[in-house]
Amino acid sequence: MSTFEHKDLLSIKQLSISDIQIILEVANSLKELIHRDIKKVPTLRGKNVTLFFYEPSTRTRTSFEIAAKILSADTVSISASASSMQKGETLLDTVKTLQAMNPDLLVIRHSSSGAPHFIAKNIKASVVNAGDGINEHPTQALLDLFTIKEKKGDIKGLNVAIIGDIAHSRVARSDILALKKMGADVTVSGPPTMMPPDIESLGVNVCYDPYEAVRNKDVVIGLRIQLERQRTFLFPSLREYANFFGINRKMLELTKPDAIIMHPGPMNRGVEIMSDVADSNRSVILDQVTNGVAVRMAILYLLIGSQK
Amino acid sequence: MSTFEHKDLLSIKQLSISDIQIILEVANSLKELIHRDIKKVPTLRGKNVTLFFYEPSTRTRTSFEIAAKILSADTVSISASASSMQKGETLLDTVKTLQAMNPDLLVIRHSSSGAPHFIAKNIKASVVNAGDGINEHPTQALLDLFTIKEKKGDIKGLNVAIIGDIAHSRVARSDILALKKMGADVTVSGPPTMMPPDIESLGVNVCYDPYEAVRNKDVVIGLRIQLERQRTFLFPSLREYANFFGINRKMLELTKPDAIIMHPGPMNRGVEIMSDVADSNRSVILDQVTNGVAVRMAILYLLIGSQK
Amino acid sequence: MSTFEHKDLLSIKQLSISDIQIILEVANSLKELIHRDIKKVPTLRGKNVTLFFYEPSTRTRTSFEIAAKILSADTVSISASASSMQKGETLLDTVKTLQAMNPDLLVIRHSSSGAPHFIAKNIKASVVNAGDGINEHPTQALLDLFTIKEKKGDIKGLNVAIIGDIAHSRVARSDILALKKMGADVTVSGPPTMMPPDIESLGVNVCYDPYEAVRNKDVVIGLRIQLERQRTFLFPSLREYANFFGINRKMLELTKPDAIIMHPGPMNRGVEIMSDVADSNRSVILDQVTNGVAVRMAILYLLIGSQK
Repeated sequence: MSTFEHKDLLSIKQLSISDIQIILEVANSLKELIHRDIKKVPTLRGKNVTLFFYEPSTRTRTSFEIAAKILSADTVSISASASSMQKGETLLDTVKTLQAMNPDLLVIRHSSSGAPHFIAKNIKASVVNAGDGINEHPTQALLDLFTIKEKKGDIKGLNVAIIGDIAHSRVARSDILALKKMGADVTVSGPPTMMPPDIESLGVNVCYDPYEAVRNKDVVIGLRIQLERQRTFLFPSLREYANFFGINRKMLELTKPDAIIMHPGPMNRGVEIMSDVADSNRSVILDQVTNGVAVRMAILYLLIGSQK
Repeated sequence: MSTFEHKDLLSIKQLSISDIQIILEVANSLKELIHRDIKKVPTLRGKNVTLFFYEPSTRTRTSFEIAAKILSADTVSISASASSMQKGETLLDTVKTLQAMNPDLLVIRHSSSGAPHFIAKNIKASVVNAGDGINEHPTQALLDLFTIKEKKGDIKGLNVAIIGDIAHSRVARSDILALKKMGADVTVSGPPTMMPPDIESLGVNVCYDPYEAVRNKDVVIGLRIQLERQRTFLFPSLREYANFFGINRKMLELTKPDAIIMHPGPMNRGVEIMSDVADSNRSVILDQVTNGVAVRMAILYLLIGSQK
Repeated sequence: MSTFEHKDLLSIKQLSISDIQIILEVANSLKELIHRDIKKVPTLRGKNVTLFFYEPSTRTRTSFEIAAKILSADTVSISASASSMQKGETLLDTVKTLQAMNPDLLVIRHSSSGAPHFIAKNIKASVVNAGDGINEHPTQALLDLFTIKEKKGDIKGLNVAIIGDIAHSRVARSDILALKKMGADVTVSGPPTMMPPDIESLGVNVCYDPYEAVRNKDVVIGLRIQLERQRTFLFPSLREYANFFGINRKMLELTKPDAIIMHPGPMNRGVEIMSDVADSNRSVILDQVTNGVAVRMAILYLLIGSQK
C-alpha cells in the first residue's frame, strides 16, 4: 500500500486515486469501532482537534467530534458567533492565534470558497475542509464513495445521476470530482437556473430531464435545496421544484433495479426527495451518516495519527 | 435486588416502585464519587452520551454532562440553535441521523410533550427525557425523591405540598406521579387559573389556600413561575402572585417543625419563594442540585453501564 | 521555593512577588507540554474545570480549555446565552448551583467589575478571573510577564510603554499592577479622554505623546480599542485615532533597537497597531498566545493540582 503524504485535506482535487483508495481502506478497517461496546482506542491520545465552524452544522461537526473522541483525541469546539470575528479580527489572525495554541488539526467550515486553503497555507496544523462556500466538501464526497463502494463493490464503470441545485452545491462539486476520478460516469440534472455554465468541463453529462437522467443508473444522489444559501428564487416555487425534480417513485422505477438512493442531508422531504423514496430499502442515506464517522476517523488518523 | 429492565427513561409513569428503589439505591452508592478528590471511574469508558437540548438549560445539561464525565463517558452537546432543525429537517430525521452515529444514550429536552417517547420508539440508543413540554421531567422527580428520602428516611406516609403553577409544570406532574407511587400524600395549591381541571384524577388533594395547604406538611415544594412558557398572564401581577402564593416565613411556621423546603430552580426570588425561606436551614434546594448529579449517574449507569 | 497559598486567582493585586515568581516558574516548566507529540499528562485527572463566560471569547476560553485538557481535567463550558441568567436567576444562585455540582475550579468572565471576587467569597471551588468589566484580567498580565521575561531575561528595571485606551482596559490595569510589582518602569499613553484621572496613583508616568512615550523603551504594549465596550466615541474617528496613537514603524525606530511589541488580541489592524508592526520580527504577539496556555496550565496546577 502506498502512503498518504498530505498535511491537509482541502479538496478532492488534491487527492490521487491512490490517496482515495488509502482513505477508503483505512475507513473500512476503522468502521467496526463505531459498533463496538467500548468505542475507544488510544490512537490519537494527546492530540488536539479543534472544530471551527463559521456556519451552523449538526451532522458534520458531530461526526468529526465523535470520530475524534473514538480515537481519544481532545476536541475544542469554536463557533463563529462566539468567536473573535465578531470583534473585528481578520481570519488570518484568528487562525494564527489558534495555531499558537498548537492544535494538531483544525476542522473548518466557512462560507467563503477557498478559506480552508488560505488557512492551511498559513498554519502548521493539519487543516480539514468541512465545507467552504459553494466550492468543496471533500469529506462528504469521500463518505459517498465509501458508501457506494460498500454497496456496489466497485466504483469504476458505475453510472451515477446527481439531481438538484448543481450550481450552488459544494457536495455536487466534490462528488463529481471524486466519482470521475474513480472512473464512474456522472450525469447531472436540475433546472437550467441551477446548472453552472461550465459544468461539462468536469466531464459530466448534462440532462435537464431528471427522468431521463436517472434511467439505468446504479446510483442516484439527491441534493439539498439550500434555501439559506440562495439570494433569489431560482425556480417559481418549492412545489414546482418538487414536482419536476423531486426524486420520486416513478424515477426509482427507471433506474437499475438495484440502484441506491443517496442524499447528504439534512433532507427537505417532499422537496428534493419524496418521503417514500427516502424511507425505501433502496435508500442508503443513514449508511452515509455512519460511514461519515468512519471516513472522518480515517482522515484524522492519516493526517495526524501515523508516525511520520 | 431486582433488576432494572428498561431501554429508556421517559417518564415516572413507566417505572415500578422497584425500579425507583433501584435508581435511588444506585444513586446513593454513586453519590460519594461527586466528593472524591479524583472524580473519575471508568464505568462508562467508550460510551457516547449525546446531549440534545431544544430549550436552553444550564443546570440540567451541566448535571448530565458532569455525571457522564465522572463515569468516563464521552459527551457530545447539541443545541437547537446550532442544529439542522433550522434547516427544515424533521425531528425524526435529525434523530435517525444521530442514531446512525451510534451514540449509546441520548438525553433530550424538547418543548413538545411526548417528543422523547417518539424518539425512543424510533432509535436503538437509550433515551432519557430531560423535560418535554408540560408533560414530564422524570430525572427531576427522581432527584426530589432521593433528597426527600435522604432527609426524611422514608417517603411512604409523608405529607407533601406542591405550591405554584401546577398546570404548566412538568416538574409538578412528575413529582406528583413519583410521590404518589412511593406512598406519599400530596396536596397541590395555586391559583385556580394554574390548576389543571382533572388534577384530582392523579390522587392529590387540591387546596387553593396555600397556608392551609402547607399545614402540618413534611415537605413543601415550590414551583418556578415559568413566565417564558406562558402566553397570557394567569394572575393579575407577579406581585400579587408573590403575596398570595410565594412561600414565606408564615407558611414555614404552619408546616411540621422539621419540614423541608424544595425548589427545582432556577428560582425567582421574591416571586414563588421568599429569600429568607430559600436561604433558611430548612431549605434543601442545593442538596437537590448535588443529588441531581448522583441520580443522573445512576440512570446513565443503569441504562448503558450494566452488562445486559 | 516558597509555596502558593491561594484558593483563587482574582487579581494581580492579591499576588506577592513570590507568588508571581512561582507562577512563572511553573509555567516555564509546563510550557514544553504544548509542543509534545502527545500533549497529555494525568496531573488533573478527575478534576472538573467549569468555564463560565458571560461575554464572548475565543482566545481566553480556548486557552483555558486546552490548558485543562493537556492536564487531563474534565471541562464543562457554559455561556451566558444558554444559562439560567436568561430565566431571571441571580448570579449568586447560578453560582451556588454550580458549586453544588462540586467543580474543582470555575473560570469566569463577567461584564461587571468584581463579579469573580463576589463569587469566590461564596463558593468552595477555586475561582479564576478571566476578565471582569474594566477591572482586571490577571491571567493576561501573567502571560505578558512570562513573555517579557522569556524575551528579556528579567523584568526588573525594564522600561515599558502601554499605548491606547488605558481607562477602559482591564488588560492595562492588570499589566500596570504586575509590571510595577516586578520592578519595571511603566509609561502610559493615549488620548486624554482615555486616561483615567487617578492613573498616576498607580505609579506610572503619563505621556500624551505616544512618540515620546515609546522612546528608549524595552517593551511596547498596544491595547485593543474595545469599541464594543464604549458607549460614546472617545475620539473623533478611528482614522484619527490610528494616525495619532496607532503603533507604527516610526515609533518602532524610537524604542530601543531590540524592543518587543505586544498586544493582547484580538487586534484591530490599522487602528491601534499597523500591520507591518504586528507582523515584524519585533512582534511577540503570537508568543503571548502560546504562553497563555502555559501560564493557565500553571494556574490550574497551582490552584487545584498540588497536594494541600
